[in-house]
Amino acid sequence: MSRFAIGVDLGGTNLRIAAVGEDGKILEVITTETEVARGRGLVLDEMCDAITKLSAKHNTNGSLCGIGIGVPGIIDMKSGMVLKSPNLPDWTDYPVQQEIERRLSTTVILENDANAAAFGEKWMGAGRDQDDLCMFTLGTGVGGGLVFDGKIWRGMTGMAGELGHTTVFADGHPCKCGSRGCVEQYASATAIKRMAIEAIERGGASELEKAAKAPTPEFSAQVIYKLAMAGDKPAQLIFQKVGQALGIALATFINALNLPMYVVGGGVSHSWDAFAPAMFEEIKFRSFVYVATSGEDPKAPRLQKTIITRALLGGDAGLLGAARLPMVMNKH
Amino acid sequence: MSRFAIGVDLGGTNLRIAAVGEDGKILEVITTETEVARGRGLVLDEMCDAITKLSAKHNTNGSLCGIGIGVPGIIDMKSGMVLKSPNLPDWTDYPVQQEIERRLSTTVILENDANAAAFGEKWMGAGRDQDDLCMFTLGTGVGGGLVFDGKIWRGMTGMAGELGHTTVFADGHPCKCGSRGCVEQYASATAIKRMAIEAIERGGASELEKAAKAPTPEFSAQVIYKLAMAGDKPAQLIFQKVGQALGIALATFINALNLPMYVVGGGVSHSWDAFAPAMFEEIKFRSFVYVATSGEDPKAPRLQKTIITRALLGGDAGLLGAARLPMVMNKH
Repeated sequence: MSRFAIGVDLGGTNLRIAAVGEDGKILEVITTETEVARGRGLVLDEMCDAITKLSAKHNTNGSLCGIGIGVPGIIDMKSGMVLKSPNLPDWTDYPVQQEIERRLSTTVILENDANAAAFGEKWMGAGRDQDDLCMFTLGTGVGGGLVFDGKIWRGMTGMAGELGHTTVFADGHPCKCGSRGCVEQYASATAIKRMAIEAIERGGASELEKAAKAPTPEFSAQVIYKLAMAGDKPAQLIFQKVGQALGIALATFINALNLPMYVVGGGVSHSWDAFAPAMFEEIKFRSFVYVATSGEDPKAPRLQKTIITRALLGGDAGLLGAARLPMVMNKH
Repeated sequence: MSRFAIGVDLGGTNLRIAAVGEDGKILEVITTETEVARGRGLVLDEMCDAITKLSAKHNTNGSLCGIGIGVPGIIDMKSGMVLKSPNLPDWTDYPVQQEIERRLSTTVILENDANAAAFGEKWMGAGRDQDDLCMFTLGTGVGGGLVFDGKIWRGMTGMAGELGHTTVFADGHPCKCGSRGCVEQYASATAIKRMAIEAIERGGASELEKAAKAPTPEFSAQVIYKLAMAGDKPAQLIFQKVGQALGIALATFINALNLPMYVVGGGVSHSWDAFAPAMFEEIKFRSFVYVATSGEDPKAPRLQKTIITRALLGGDAGLLGAARLPMVMNKH
């Protein structure tokens, strides 16, 4: 009998819940209308209702392995609790895993959402053929996930993968983590918008200014990307900064980890064409490990190539990765 | 019957060869007087002679597992060749491993010297009780080594652990790797001397100037350290920069890897008292993962602590780590 699992993406705004087959096929997705900001109790009820519905429906085709939940925050794997989550303040210090296990009588695994996304890309996406990868998820913030030997690298206390807080400009923009110059401050959607506002304030960015003042569409990283692709120089400079910052961070991890694959995902990764040239330029400048393994160095021996690529699964990476967790756990 | 192995430290100047017991005891060390710079042929002859002598002598007490050789450069594990070594130019593109195996008829393993040092500290030094650690070796350059799950993390092509080329100041001093602002340019003995000369040129560093002009002792990182500890402000500022640069790099890896231990070794680590305060200050500023696991955050739950510590084995780390390689390999 085949097996399936439930993956949950507890995003910043909505809640997505999917039944996923062991072959990686998404059988069904429920997107609740409950705003996550409306509080833990409501979200937990909706989540458990949806899971119950999905598992009842798909139980006829296979047995349920368990539930994996991607959470935007730091998870204590031992206690199954959320230690820190700027976007879900009322979820910390609450036994999430225990409570859902109690309600649904099945295995529940919590995981950081960016780790889940990396695991999803490893399972069904860009990293399908890799045992090891590093993923940057460029969204509202910058998340990260490391997969070593086919498994999520959680580190000592489950806090590993905080790649968004890699210092790229030591004296750079203050970060809400307490540091300055984190890559999150240059390569997230929030940072792109901030850099556009800074450009407007400096002057000489009339197109950006026009877009910022327009009632619709909302002034966003996507709007700024469109301006950059249309040839607007100030908008292009912003994406060059995105690429440079991401390139500095990637170069550090290429030199340190020498992995076969680095994946860039999240909403901002759709602006790949605008930031990738600067990103690759920076990586070539800063990582002799990349140069030796890029296949472009005529002096380097024919070594396996380092691949730097876009994510393939879009918003489903986290859902798939979360669903994969109980499948893999039950196998061990 | 107990076993032993031969560890070789193919350093920048001399060659050290040790017989090491399976209990981590160094049975005997031979330091050849051959300068490594005098060429590959001579060094290979001396190395093989010394290994033959040591193994003949210690064979009576145990069986030889093989030979591990720490090499300052990038190793291609598959071919057993040195791919790149600025200090041993005539060792590249030469089948080192094969040649020694042919001469001595035993297993030979090449390893990057900083990886070997990290493995040595894991086996018998600061990391004895850890499965995972990250080590920075601050010498003429800055080397690095990662140990995950008790094993050296070599990466896809054996190039992992190049932590010395972590960008810490994006627009910083040019590095011989081709990049700028690598931690090697601020935390190596070479960098300390350079920063002292820069301070002298800027003026107002009379003690440093006096030391630089004195015929003896040679103007070195150690001399500058002594001035710093004696209260000389310009010398102290140099070590603050060492600590800051190292702290930025460490914070990045603490956030990314969440390991239980980070070890600082190499000659410059003897200046710990001069650079460690600035290093810890920088880490606390830049790594919320460190803060949460430092045991100092009253709001953080009682999590396992991140340990940042000096190496314990000094110059023997590389010898021990190299010797450990064939012992472990034969066990699998």
